[in-house]
Amino acid sequence: MADDAEKTILVLNGPNLDLLATREPETHGHATLAEVERLCVETAARFGLVTDCRQANHEGALVDCIHEARSRGVPGIVLNAGTYSHTSIALHDALTGVKIPTVEVYFGNIRARAGVRHHSFTAKAAFASICGFGIDGYRLAITGLAAKIGAKAAPSATTTTDI
Amino acid sequence: MADDAEKTILVLNGPNLDLLATREPETHGHATLAEVERLCVETAARFGLVTDCRQANHEGALVDCIHEARSRGVPGIVLNAGTYSHTSIALHDALTGVKIPTVEVYFGNIRARAGVRHHSFTAKAAFASICGFGIDGYRLAITGLAAKIGAKAAPSATTTTDI
Amino acid sequence: MADDAEKTILVLNGPNLDLLATREPETHGHATLAEVERLCVETAARFGLVTDCRQANHEGALVDCIHEARSRGVPGIVLNAGTYSHTSIALHDALTGVKIPTVEVYFGNIRARAGVRHHSFTAKAAFASICGFGIDGYRLAITGLAAKIGAKAAPSATTTTDI
Amino acid sequence: MADDAEKTILVLNGPNLDLLATREPETHGHATLAEVERLCVETAARFGLVTDCRQANHEGALVDCIHEARSRGVPGIVLNAGTYSHTSIALHDALTGVKIPTVEVYFGNIRARAGVRHHSFTAKAAFASICGFGIDGYRLAITGLAAKIGAKAAPSATTTTDI
Amino acid sequence: MADDAEKTILVLNGPNLDLLATREPETHGHATLAEVERLCVETAARFGLVTDCRQANHEGALVDCIHEARSRGVPGIVLNAGTYSHTSIALHDALTGVKIPTVEVYFGNIRARAGVRHHSFTAKAAFASICGFGIDGYRLAITGLAAKIGAKAAPSATTTTDI
Amino acid sequence: MADDAEKTILVLNGPNLDLLATREPETHGHATLAEVERLCVETAARFGLVTDCRQANHEGALVDCIHEARSRGVPGIVLNAGTYSHTSIALHDALTGVKIPTVEVYFGNIRARAGVRHHSFTAKAAFASICGFGIDGYRLAITGLAAKIGAKAAPSATTTTDI
Amino acid sequence: MADDAEKTILVLNGPNLDLLATREPETHGHATLAEVERLCVETAARFGLVTDCRQANHEGALVDCIHEARSRGVPGIVLNAGTYSHTSIALHDALTGVKIPTVEVYFGNIRARAGVRHHSFTAKAAFASICGFGIDGYRLAITGLAAKIGAKAAPSATTTTDI
Amino acid sequence: MADDAEKTILVLNGPNLDLLATREPETHGHATLAEVERLCVETAARFGLVTDCRQANHEGALVDCIHEARSRGVPGIVLNAGTYSHTSIALHDALTGVKIPTVEVYFGNIRARAGVRHHSFTAKAAFASICGFGIDGYRLAITGLAAKIGAKAAPSATTTTDI
Amino acid sequence: MADDAEKTILVLNGPNLDLLATREPETHGHATLAEVERLCVETAARFGLVTDCRQANHEGALVDCIHEARSRGVPGIVLNAGTYSHTSIALHDALTGVKIPTVEVYFGNIRARAGVRHHSFTAKAAFASICGFGIDGYRLAITGLAAKIGAKAAPSATTTTDI
Amino acid sequence: MADDAEKTILVLNGPNLDLLATREPETHGHATLAEVERLCVETAARFGLVTDCRQANHEGALVDCIHEARSRGVPGIVLNAGTYSHTSIALHDALTGVKIPTVEVYFGNIRARAGVRHHSFTAKAAFASICGFGIDGYRLAITGLAAKIGAKAAPSATTTTDI
Amino acid sequence: MADDAEKTILVLNGPNLDLLATREPETHGHATLAEVERLCVETAARFGLVTDCRQANHEGALVDCIHEARSRGVPGIVLNAGTYSHTSIALHDALTGVKIPTVEVYFGNIRARAGVRHHSFTAKAAFASICGFGIDGYRLAITGLAAKIGAKAAPSATTTTDI
Amino acid sequence: MADDAEKTILVLNGPNLDLLATREPETHGHATLAEVERLCVETAARFGLVTDCRQANHEGALVDCIHEARSRGVPGIVLNAGTYSHTSIALHDALTGVKIPTVEVYFGNIRARAGVRHHSFTAKAAFASICGFGIDGYRLAITGLAAKIGAKAAPSATTTTDI
Repeated sequence: MADDAEKTILVLNGPNLDLLATREPETHGHATLAEVERLCVETAARFGLVTDCRQANHEGALVDCIHEARSRGVPGIVLNAGTYSHTSIALHDALTGVKIPTVEVYFGNIRARAGVRHHSFTAKAAFASICGFGIDGYRLAITGLAAKIGAKAAPSATTTTDI
Repeated sequence: MADDAEKTILVLNGPNLDLLATREPETHGHATLAEVERLCVETAARFGLVTDCRQANHEGALVDCIHEARSRGVPGIVLNAGTYSHTSIALHDALTGVKIPTVEVYFGNIRARAGVRHHSFTAKAAFASICGFGIDGYRLAITGLAAKIGAKAAPSATTTTDI
Repeated sequence: MADDAEKTILVLNGPNLDLLATREPETHGHATLAEVERLCVETAARFGLVTDCRQANHEGALVDCIHEARSRGVPGIVLNAGTYSHTSIALHDALTGVKIPTVEVYFGNIRARAGVRHHSFTAKAAFASICGFGIDGYRLAITGLAAKIGAKAAPSATTTTDI
Repeated sequence: MADDAEKTILVLNGPNLDLLATREPETHGHATLAEVERLCVETAARFGLVTDCRQANHEGALVDCIHEARSRGVPGIVLNAGTYSHTSIALHDALTGVKIPTVEVYFGNIRARAGVRHHSFTAKAAFASICGFGIDGYRLAITGLAAKIGAKAAPSATTTTDI
Repeated sequence: MADDAEKTILVLNGPNLDLLATREPETHGHATLAEVERLCVETAARFGLVTDCRQANHEGALVDCIHEARSRGVPGIVLNAGTYSHTSIALHDALTGVKIPTVEVYFGNIRARAGVRHHSFTAKAAFASICGFGIDGYRLAITGLAAKIGAKAAPSATTTTDI
Repeated sequence: MADDAEKTILVLNGPNLDLLATREPETHGHATLAEVERLCVETAARFGLVTDCRQANHEGALVDCIHEARSRGVPGIVLNAGTYSHTSIALHDALTGVKIPTVEVYFGNIRARAGVRHHSFTAKAAFASICGFGIDGYRLAITGLAAKIGAKAAPSATTTTDI
Repeated sequence: MADDAEKTILVLNGPNLDLLATREPETHGHATLAEVERLCVETAARFGLVTDCRQANHEGALVDCIHEARSRGVPGIVLNAGTYSHTSIALHDALTGVKIPTVEVYFGNIRARAGVRHHSFTAKAAFASICGFGIDGYRLAITGLAAKIGAKAAPSATTTTDI
Repeated sequence: MADDAEKTILVLNGPNLDLLATREPETHGHATLAEVERLCVETAARFGLVTDCRQANHEGALVDCIHEARSRGVPGIVLNAGTYSHTSIALHDALTGVKIPTVEVYFGNIRARAGVRHHSFTAKAAFASICGFGIDGYRLAITGLAAKIGAKAAPSATTTTDI
Repeated sequence: MADDAEKTILVLNGPNLDLLATREPETHGHATLAEVERLCVETAARFGLVTDCRQANHEGALVDCIHEARSRGVPGIVLNAGTYSHTSIALHDALTGVKIPTVEVYFGNIRARAGVRHHSFTAKAAFASICGFGIDGYRLAITGLAAKIGAKAAPSATTTTDI
Repeated sequence: MADDAEKTILVLNGPNLDLLATREPETHGHATLAEVERLCVETAARFGLVTDCRQANHEGALVDCIHEARSRGVPGIVLNAGTYSHTSIALHDALTGVKIPTVEVYFGNIRARAGVRHHSFTAKAAFASICGFGIDGYRLAITGLAAKIGAKAAPSATTTTDI
Repeated sequence: MADDAEKTILVLNGPNLDLLATREPETHGHATLAEVERLCVETAARFGLVTDCRQANHEGALVDCIHEARSRGVPGIVLNAGTYSHTSIALHDALTGVKIPTVEVYFGNIRARAGVRHHSFTAKAAFASICGFGIDGYRLAITGLAAKIGAKAAPSATTTTDI
Repeated sequence: MADDAEKTILVLNGPNLDLLATREPETHGHATLAEVERLCVETAARFGLVTDCRQANHEGALVDCIHEARSRGVPGIVLNAGTYSHTSIALHDALTGVKIPTVEVYFGNIRARAGVRHHSFTAKAAFASICGFGIDGYRLAITGLAAKIGAKAAPSATTTTDI
């Protein structure tokens, strides 16, 4: 891995995730979006990766971010599409269009849900999915994504954390 | 954590997982069940945990294993219920009955599937789910489960692996 | 009624009923399986009947028990098939195959349930169904079954109980 | 139990049950409505209870009866709502509104039915259900209801019947 | 009520409501969006309230408005989400996230509609709904919302209008 | 408006609404039916209207009331059909048959409900619907209905109330 | 045919048919209920039959009429159950219970309808059905019913009518 | 009515009606197709009409017949489309295309059927439907059709038959 | 078996089977219709039977063939109705009407198909079904049909073939 | 074919098939399981094959048998999975996992069934299916399977039987 | 392109298209079938192509035409299958069997339709579809088909028309 | 046609169409969006029209474009709404609101698709639809739209192209 973009993971959070910690704390925990992004930065660093953290409430803005990731050569995406995962075929097509390995992550155990929230368009365009671990799911998603795209854990990174 | 049972994770694999590596390698990869279980042993060790690895093709035998885990005081379960995840309400009730924190894991991206294989009874009784990472999903599942049940990574365990 | 088998009611409990009293006490009450079986023994005795109490988590084992009941000439069955009532056509066919009068019993008010737990394959093979009375349902089931198969209440049996 | 109303069980039969014995005897048996009500009187008496037996073909009249039962302080209801069980949300709401413990009873094995006759609105407002025992189901329903509301079998009542 | 935000009702109109009076006048009447907003201003004034009137064709922009309302401490929302009411789970989650009392309003009698236009995600996040009164529905919505949040009609406001 | 009937609004409440205040107070509030009717009388008076308040648990009686309203020349109906709104096509046809402008009103937010309680036959025959405001919905319904049928607020009526 | 009841056809009209001629004349024509009943009387007379014409808006009243027809020995029924045909299983069971040959008749072409109005519970209990002929359907229904129950056209009856 | 075509009713029987009397006599009775057609000839004659009786097992042939009826100016059609009524949109469009008043007739009570045989495409293109009277349905259909198209019963025709 | 018709099996192939070998060879193999018919002739001969092989693309023509088989006294039918098996109720009724024992045969494993091609109307009128053996299915179908209708294998027929 | 396993067909019968001859003889005929297995032995012998006949009521035991067949190198399977064919995805995956050519066989005409018994998971993993021939279906299944796997009829085997 | 067949486009019109101009002119316009075919001839000529125009009301006849097109080497088909597009799998299989590039064309905007007319079997076998342009759709279909099969616009053809 | 806007066709491409040529070339071909727009410009020029080509990934932006087209007096729209065609009722209402003749165009044969991609909200607001021709569909769409809105092919435009 030579240039920056090749070392950059896009961490993309969808609608209402800016309300984290104030919305349904029993499901989402008390972490703020800033804490989620900090955890992503730290976990990525352990594999020699950096993160580009984005959040948007606009479906089209999320599509734009994914297109831009392709232009820049980003090697992997961690996506929490929020409710757009249930309704947006556009996001599905954006992901299949750019062909970047993507992990879906959710705070709650979305596989246990019923009705419209059980279904996910974006899941069909991701190679893997993690849900139910709360904020810790982002750590696991980046860990799994790093293995997928061949990023090794940096030697010195392992001294103080407990992964 | 004092006695052994409190340090033991049950890793439970369901029907046909004994055929791993010979069945649908494009989905499941080339790992054998023995390799899966070895990875579980190694990952668990990093958190001071041991694993009790079981596989059965009988729905009732899987229910029995879960009941037994409760009797022994096992603190966590990693479950790949295979196709019984789609059809067994008995397994669901066994899990909700014993109240042991459980992570569902799948080789393929089960959330992308359609029809009967999209639905999971056992998911509703697990607190979290990981799918699509192939054999690596077991590593992530134990890592996430360890965090959930408060097992810390052992200091010396981090020197050579790349988690 | 001359020999023993003709006086023996099969009381068959399905998956997870060995967890009674520890699982969902708000639905199932605090009775243990042992207490259920003791109530069955006592109620049957009032009609000059004995009970053969079985519990299994294996669908096939329940089918085997029903087949064996036919070989032995058992005149009636009280069945709590648990979750297999919702998924097992094999149990249905076993019951219709052996042609032994059967009463379905449930702890909770299963008729009030929705979705997959509303449906029962085994109900279609039973002649009657009782649900919602908790452990007391077994007493009523044996009482109704005894009337159906012509077993009379034993004279001395009525002195101390309150049926 | 001091006054009469507190000792009175409402036995409420719905549409077409006045045709009993002339309609589908293979399902409902040859008992007349008068015989059903006589059995209810006798069974209730064994627990020191009296019965208020009503039958109506009007959905609204059944709702009125249930409201009236609340005004009078009736402690329990045995309900055979007939076909209104499948179509009347009004009856459901009447039962949940008055909060009187109710047992549903049916002549045939209604749980074995398919289609519209499988569904019951009133079941969701009853605490228990008995079906398939023909006229004997009323005896079992009152027996179970008596236990539920704490009415004891009267000592002298057990000499000649075979419960 | 001290500061302005606490006296400000957000009146939020969704996609295509800028076309009012030109689109389907038989359903929506001949009022323009400007007239709708003027009616809202006047009605709110009668209760000592002011309105912040917004219209957007972007789902994400509507979500942003709702989030912003929470930041500013707005005490109530009148929402005509237009067709996004049928398709946007994101709007539903925005409303449940900000926990501001919301009244849904529609020009036409949306409850009489069939198919996809019968369903409303946003209705599940509103406390009340008014439809079928045309432009007059906004007057009623603000009147009901004011009562809900405890805003009193201003004495002098009642002289000329006919509420 | 000359004679009385032309000034009379029919306020029609359906099954179980006589149980108001005792049934599900968390949904319906603590108002009694008498209080609902008193609010209707007062609100109507503000527009120079009187009300004819009826309640019935019989579907047919509600149909009869609607037919009678047509004979008498009643200019508007406020209808809370209760659960008959979900099941009665007869009420729908009565309303479309008499062609009197009708507003549906509900205590709870019926648009947020799922399943059978989401659907309303009577809604299709009303011109407007109000739900979720509790007892206050009747005030808004009469207010909106008065505007629809051209009844003006009486000058002196506005001095003390807070509409 | 000796006594009167044996010569009496019950003509039973359901809810809202008292509104005939005022409701949907494009579907139902301009005939009043009185004219319908007069046509029935005349047609029946041609076969030596008399008619007992009833109309009710109450489902239970219609059930009562059918039960009464059985008590009196009425040999045939012409039924226009109106909207209760779509919702009343009670009427279906009343008809199957009394076992009197019944012809369903409708003004409009009900077989061309979609959705809930396409389905008929009462049709399943009638031996025949006629729809789409408007008021003339009653003439055809009685003609067909007379043939079914063996009533012959009276010789003198054919001189002036055009059947 | 001057020329022949204007006096000619097309009686069109669909697939397998040539097997009448040999197929399901319990449903269709023992009449042969020849007897059906003879009854049609006789009934039509009573109204000064003649019949053109056709039968075909080919959907396309039935469509051709209907087109030809339009070319010839036929004023009415009696159609028993057999099973094509359930599957042929082509027949529906042929009937709506030629705009000739059509009565559907069936031997059995098709409205009582379930599943695919309950639905009828051709019913939507007919103005009326008669079913369940067996062969007598054809007599009633022609009688009703004659009234519809204004054909009067011929004076001398009424002497010996029993309509 | 005396005359020819009694020894004649009708082998009826439906639409597009004349395209065999050119259409989807991966499913249907490379056999032509002529080869299929030759195999039928040879297999039938082994049981002293002859075959009448027909193919038609017209649904009505297939119905006609079946009717004709009945007139001639044909004792058995082997039917590959092609796609008409999924759509033709007319063919179903033709088979049930003529009451000739029929075996359905398909080239591909039709039971493994989903959606509209999974369903078969004709299967409900056949006594048996064979699918998935390609051309060999015809051999098995005639072998099974011969056993059903009591045709014995001819002694000399077994010398060279490998059944 | 050299060693035994290569010449061995697994004949696998599922739940309740041990009840053959006592269960639903009108569907399954009067053959016992022993007779079925004897017919399989004889038919296989004609092709130089032997059979390994198993029956189990346990889904898991059937899965185990199929796995074992793969270990031993069995070239073909005849499977009557009984009711597990409708409910067991595990059996489907076992068959697709071992990749052994399999023929499904049923006593009754399962393709004519409706509802849950119409569907088959195991059918999707078999290459062919035979149903409706009763016990004779096993003979045809082995005959077709032998052709599929290239086993020739043994010369001397054809002298006395009538295949 | 040398011989005639290679230059011949099959223009195939299905059931009821012979009624064009008389049926639903608001949807289909006032063009007759002759005018449609003349437009096809003229448009084809512009690309050096000739057309073979057929119309049939028989599903089987349309299948026959498609088979014949393959025998003759026709390079392209324009198909308006009419209502058979919704019901005929046989036509679908004919098209996939002959593998000739096909364009579906409709007068009305069939994609805007609901229910059974929304679905098209033939669409799945065509490479392209045009609808909603009325008769002009045939011109566009041939224009697009010509481009697909490589036919160039003839130089002199462009002088007077306005494509 | 005088001013520019009246000669301007809006060509509107939806989400992910900026990825053309890189996404699913087997479906969409190798044309880039720039090439699509160039083809539109050239085709429009042949009819004396100019094009306003827009592309957006935001649903709201597409709605805005359509509203703007109405303000400017644009006479026609060619719309490829991409996946928003399946999910956006807002786009549907925008089109019906502005009442500008619109042709839907798709690269692939969208009518052959199943599930959610089969349905189109925007189709219901367009007058015509073209799919399956790849980039050539835009040429046909503009050609057909020009005819619809009365734009004539320019004389000199036809010399070198091959339409």
